[in-house]
Amino acid sequence: MDIQALAQSVRNGERRGLARAITLVESARADHRIAAAGLLEALAQGGKQALRIGLSGTPGVGKSTFIESFGMNLIAKGLRVAVLAVDPSSTRSGGSILGDKTRMDRLSREQAAFIRPSPSQTHLGGVARRSREAVAVCEAAGFDVVLIETVGVGQSETVVAQMADLFVLLLAPAGGDELQGVKRGIMEMADLILVNKADGDLKPAATRTMADYAGALRLLRKRAQDPSDFPKALAVSALEENGLEQAWEEMSALIAWRRENGFFEGTRAEQARFWFEEDVRQSLLARLSEAGALRNAMDDLGAAVARGDVTPAFAAQQMRELL
Amino acid sequence: MDIQALAQSVRNGERRGLARAITLVESARADHRIAAAGLLEALAQGGKQALRIGLSGTPGVGKSTFIESFGMNLIAKGLRVAVLAVDPSSTRSGGSILGDKTRMDRLSREQAAFIRPSPSQTHLGGVARRSREAVAVCEAAGFDVVLIETVGVGQSETVVAQMADLFVLLLAPAGGDELQGVKRGIMEMADLILVNKADGDLKPAATRTMADYAGALRLLRKRAQDPSDFPKALAVSALEENGLEQAWEEMSALIAWRRENGFFEGTRAEQARFWFEEDVRQSLLARLSEAGALRNAMDDLGAAVARGDVTPAFAAQQMRELL
Repeated sequence: MDIQALAQSVRNGERRGLARAITLVESARADHRIAAAGLLEALAQGGKQALRIGLSGTPGVGKSTFIESFGMNLIAKGLRVAVLAVDPSSTRSGGSILGDKTRMDRLSREQAAFIRPSPSQTHLGGVARRSREAVAVCEAAGFDVVLIETVGVGQSETVVAQMADLFVLLLAPAGGDELQGVKRGIMEMADLILVNKADGDLKPAATRTMADYAGALRLLRKRAQDPSDFPKALAVSALEENGLEQAWEEMSALIAWRRENGFFEGTRAEQARFWFEEDVRQSLLARLSEAGALRNAMDDLGAAVARGDVTPAFAAQQMRELL
Repeated sequence: MDIQALAQSVRNGERRGLARAITLVESARADHRIAAAGLLEALAQGGKQALRIGLSGTPGVGKSTFIESFGMNLIAKGLRVAVLAVDPSSTRSGGSILGDKTRMDRLSREQAAFIRPSPSQTHLGGVARRSREAVAVCEAAGFDVVLIETVGVGQSETVVAQMADLFVLLLAPAGGDELQGVKRGIMEMADLILVNKADGDLKPAATRTMADYAGALRLLRKRAQDPSDFPKALAVSALEENGLEQAWEEMSALIAWRRENGFFEGTRAEQARFWFEEDVRQSLLARLSEAGALRNAMDDLGAAVARGDVTPAFAAQQMRELL
């Protein structure tokens, strides 16, 4: 495989080159991993930075509609938009979100848009690292905005926040005082909370929910990388395309502030180090399943544990002496 | 520390011994890990099996109320009940669920009940393994039922299902056709879905939601370890203590069937092997942060990545040559 030619094709913004490059970084094969490292190194030279936006929201909040409306809005400004999905949490079903491009019918037909479904993989570390590398490829291909979509409450948000410049939480209007059970950890990750469906009958509920979240956000400890008026909550309607312009302005203002204050590059540097360490951790773990003495000991002790001859903790203690 | 004496105290069902034993297995200190392995090995000899019930439900579904009512119900039958919490998903906030015992005021005053909040830890593998070991300790202490509570959608359920004999999903009545955005992967883990709040105004909605889930469950592929009429959905009211008896009967019937058909012990054997392998994986990863040549290379390459001199993928490739 000619890595330099592939890198050039990506840089030229050719869709086929882009798709091939992402397929390469998503591959788990050892020789592909080496080629991917070379490709990413080649793509890292120069090139502009995209804005990487992490976006989370449980099913039913209208995430697809939001991404489509928001994406079309950005394209109308002359920006190029890539959409990637990360779904590390469904280890049993392996179901991919964004598997169905028809969810974003208008956006997927735009020349300035690129939509990539999540790879169906079962390994959290692996999926996440490859998604992060797919973001880097999209950046090198000249996209102005990379939207990284995820779903769930917990682990997957943490992973996406590690590859995004800002993190947006999309929520539905809530009834009463429940705040939809958003976990404190997720709230603390959000730079911007958007309460969707501020249209029709739900408009009053959306506005009330937005105010509730704005209140809750004020109670959180301020982070160094935030200007004093962030994180914020807004009410939007993806359906009626209301509030999307303001959402974009808030995002732009936040990023401009972070750039001026050195937090933008600082966070990216920390994230790069995190992904390096994560990659090494995964490589180390792979040792246990490769043929050899370690693998044999794992199999033998594993069988003894399954028979109930020894406890998992005791067998692990014996393995530690071999590591 | 006298491990044999501690093991005896746990077996005698002494609360102080139990609490000390759990604190020991939750500790990350190397010498404590070795002592904990010895303790678990001592406790594994003989003793009866508890029924380990994994219980999940997002905030707002009335999980505390359910655990309290259900637990009191079991105690009234002469059973002893332990409640443990696993919350591996909140890596940033570190907030523990069950931190506040007053959530289960009646249950916590019962002599036949033991409630243990989740350890506030940031490492998924670590928290999970220690919780699994705490379950083993409670089992050795003679509890008849160990309820393992978790929250969230995704990763934490998978982990809890790996330490439970059966998995119960607690849900709230839903409006319309939304099915509350339960992920397919979570649905597939559930042995029993309980739709709570089947009381007062919400009763019709709860009954409808229960029927919706029952229909959805019928669409899932059957698992070998399930009798033909499982998984099931029931409507319950933790508040009015309705349906709890039936829920317990369904659980008992499922477990009896699995025992007769060899799936109970088979699943436990697979789980034990999983936790052994997980423990070894964690030990291997610990190598990267211990002092030495590996740690130095990690630090140097990590700094180069943070400066932007090399990409994370390229630096990881260099580390792989040292592993």
